[in-house]
Order: sequence, then structure tokens, then C-alpha cells
Amino acid sequence: MKLTPEQLRAFDDEGYVFLPGCFSEEEIALLRIEAENILKPDRQEIWREKSGAPRTAFAAHTFSEVFRLLAHHPRLVEPLRQLFGEDVYVHQFKINAKAAFEGDVWQWHQDYGTWARDDGMPEPRAMNIAVFLDEVMPINGPLMIIPKSHKHGTLAAGHDELTTSYPLWTLDKETVTRLCADGGIVAPTGKPGSALMFHGNIVHASPPNITPYPRKIVYLTLCAVSNHITKFTRPEWIAHRDFTPIVPVADDALAAWGRAHRVAAE
Amino acid sequence: MKLTPEQLRAFDDEGYVFLPGCFSEEEIALLRIEAENILKPDRQEIWREKSGAPRTAFAAHTFSEVFRLLAHHPRLVEPLRQLFGEDVYVHQFKINAKAAFEGDVWQWHQDYGTWARDDGMPEPRAMNIAVFLDEVMPINGPLMIIPKSHKHGTLAAGHDELTTSYPLWTLDKETVTRLCADGGIVAPTGKPGSALMFHGNIVHASPPNITPYPRKIVYLTLCAVSNHITKFTRPEWIAHRDFTPIVPVADDALAAWGRAHRVAAE
Repeated sequence: MKLTPEQLRAFDDEGYVFLPGCFSEEEIALLRIEAENILKPDRQEIWREKSGAPRTAFAAHTFSEVFRLLAHHPRLVEPLRQLFGEDVYVHQFKINAKAAFEGDVWQWHQDYGTWARDDGMPEPRAMNIAVFLDEVMPINGPLMIIPKSHKHGTLAAGHDELTTSYPLWTLDKETVTRLCADGGIVAPTGKPGSALMFHGNIVHASPPNITPYPRKIVYLTLCAVSNHITKFTRPEWIAHRDFTPIVPVADDALAAWGRAHRVAAE
Repeated sequence: MKLTPEQLRAFDDEGYVFLPGCFSEEEIALLRIEAENILKPDRQEIWREKSGAPRTAFAAHTFSEVFRLLAHHPRLVEPLRQLFGEDVYVHQFKINAKAAFEGDVWQWHQDYGTWARDDGMPEPRAMNIAVFLDEVMPINGPLMIIPKSHKHGTLAAGHDELTTSYPLWTLDKETVTRLCADGGIVAPTGKPGSALMFHGNIVHASPPNITPYPRKIVYLTLCAVSNHITKFTRPEWIAHRDFTPIVPVADDALAAWGRAHRVAAE
């Protein structure tokens, strides 16, 4: 899958591209069930909210076959190879749970701010592709992004270790207000299987989820191979140190796994 | 202003009626400026978030002329006299600030649950009319309501004194999930001046506001005079003890005050 010239222009201008229906219901059902199983047990890769509800699962692509297929999926990998003009590797892989009633806030931040400060990533030549595992609605803690904010470079940030269980380099209110004056805030919503690519310097946040509707999103972070990280301050399962270029799987790999799995289970 | 037969039927079925454009921009501008001034100083009627930002101002209609006019406004009073079939009095008057970046959650609750338990109000023959002073958007902590939840009577609740600075009788996750299975959640959004009437037993909540956009709403609670409260456990400025029937002001009273005020200021 390649981005169209219009999508490339939109990405340059706005800093994001939204791709509804990127994965089928059948493909997403596999991932959602697997994510729910992954988020249950206590293991070091699963971070929890202060309430105990799951917040983030790291590195599921290293211990789950269906998430390995997702991290190597051509619908996610190809557009980023196209944008960066070179091979990419997996810098980070998260399932953010935003659990029903319990999912807590992610304060306003830029991802590249953390990758630069904590991981020594040279340039913002890495980015997230978010894949919706549940329906993202305006009411269940959607991802909010500030269009055009990627044009401001890496902004000054403070290290927030108090608000939530996850330490984050966050922006102050004055900066966020100034950035919003330009293009406001958008909160892309849509069915499970929708995908959202956004520039590493796009400022984003998400509010708590107070509804009965969980809002799981996978964040696959792909980095240009030549731009690999240079500092190893975080565990390997948070900021990966294997810079091997991704070789994409077949486009129907998830569906084929699903069929094989069902056959095997009968 | 009278509700139409369609609006009355919608209220019976769904538990709420949304009235966009109930007040003009000119009328709302007066109220918004006054609200911002009221929320600034420290006084006992102003409750604050844990962060110090204003959360709720009580009883502004007792010390602000423009809010006195709002509490006596025929566009709010007449529909409730029509619904209850008798005169009404002001049971409570709140300006909920939901401040930019700081406005905190209101957990799922029924207002009548508090009025019954804390104030000894005999029946759910009182209700809120919410008047939007700012634009209410999906992103800035909108009021969320569960349609049809008023048909379940007064539900079991626990007294939450921990989550926020304001004690509230809140519903548990199982109850909210069960109620949502019926008709989901709606979050009416709209321009300043929109109004929302909702039954005293409608289950509602609002998430924190993490955006730069404040979301001030006035909640005018009117109670049928024959249904006045019988227990006085809360301060008079939270649960009023003056059961005098409201005599509505003229429909143009706010606009006239605005004109007179501008003339006087010149």
C-alpha cells in the first residue's frame, strides 16, 4: 500500500493521515481477542493505571504471533518506507488499553521529544501508526492531535512523573494553547481497523475514558534504519535495540493465520 | 416558551430535551463575562478543583443581577412549569466551570439521588436546565447522558468523597454498563446559548477537560413548589430553603439589562 500524492501533501501540511478501514473486521477481531488476553496477566511489559487497570502493554510483537504479523504488516510498513525513503525497524510497540471507566489521561506531548531525550534518536524520522482495535468514539477517550504542530520542531517539555503511572515529557498549557490557536484540535474517530499515521513531532494527548466502552489502540513506532537510537536508558522491551530492517509479511498474513488457527482449533 | 407535543414525548421517552439557540449570542456574552468574574475570587460559594481551578460556583443568582434574571427567565421556567403542572422554585443554581486543562471529572450519577438522600426531596419532580455559556464540544468535557435511564427510578449509589473535591452519590460500573446497553450515551454539543433539560433521574457524567477551551455550563435546578425539600443538611446556598414560586421576568430582560448596562457604562 502506497500513500497517494494527496495523502503525502496532507501529511506534510497537517502532520497526519487517517486511513479508515485499513484492516478488516476479521483481521481486527483476531488482534482484539489477543490484546485482551495479553493485558490480563501481570508481567513486566504490562504497565497499569493507578487503579490497577491495564494502561500499556509493550513489545507484544515479540511474544505474540498475531502482533508480530501486525508489526510487519505491509499496510503499515510500506507507507513509512515510502515516507522515509529507506528501510524501517520497530522502535516501539504498544497496546494502549484506555480501559472502560479506568483509562487515564495521556497529557499533551510529542513522541519524538521522548525518543530524542531518552533514547538519543538523531532526527524525527520515526513515527507512530495507530491501529484502532475498538471503535474510537468522541466519548471514550479518543486520541486528540493538534494539526500542523509538527512544524514547530521539538518543543520545550517537562518530565511528568506524577500525573499518571507512565513518565512522559509533557508540554505546558501556554504552549498547547498557542499551538491550538493555529488549527485547533482534531480527534479522529472510527471503526475498529482504522489507522492513523502521525508525525513524531505532532502534539497529541488523550483524555480519560469514563464510559463502559474500552478504547484499545496499537501504536506501532517505526524508525528509519539510518536514524536508529544511540542511548540505551530504557529497557530493551520499551525502546528496541534490534535495528534489523523489517521484511513485510504478505498482505493476507493475518487472515491466513486466523484461518489456520481456526482449523487447528477444530 | 412552551414545549411542543413532540418535545414532551421525547422527554418522556428519552429523559431529555435539547434546545439549541435558546439564548442569543448577545445574552450569553453578558452571562459569560459575569461568570468569569464570579469564578475568580475566593468565597464560600466557589468550590475549587484539587488544582485550585474553579469547579463550581453556587447561588450566583443571589448575588448577581444577570444570573438572577437567568434563574427567573421564562425560556427556562415556563417549560418546567408546563412539565410539572404547577409553580416552581429555585432548588439549586450552579455555574460549573470545567476550566481549560483543569476541569475534572463528574462521575456517573443521578441528581435526584442527591436531592432525595441529602435534602429529603419527596419525588423527582425537580430537574436541571443546563445553559451552555461556552461552546460545548466533544473534546472539552461535554456533559454525557444515558438516554432512558430516568425510567429506572432512583438507583443504588455510593457516596464518593475521594475522586473530586465535590462529594457526590455515584453509580457503580456495573449499573452504568447495564444502563448503556439499552440506549448508549449521548453528549449534546453546541454553541453557547444552547440549553438542555434533563429528568432528575437521568444518569449523567462529564469527563475532564484537557483542552485549552473552557466549558462553562449553568445548571438551574427548578423544583415543583409542592415537592420542596424537607431536610436541611446542606448549606442554604447549596440547597435553597426559599420555596417562593418564581415569577418569570420579561423575555427580553437580559438583553434590556445589557443595553442599560452599556448605556450606564458610557
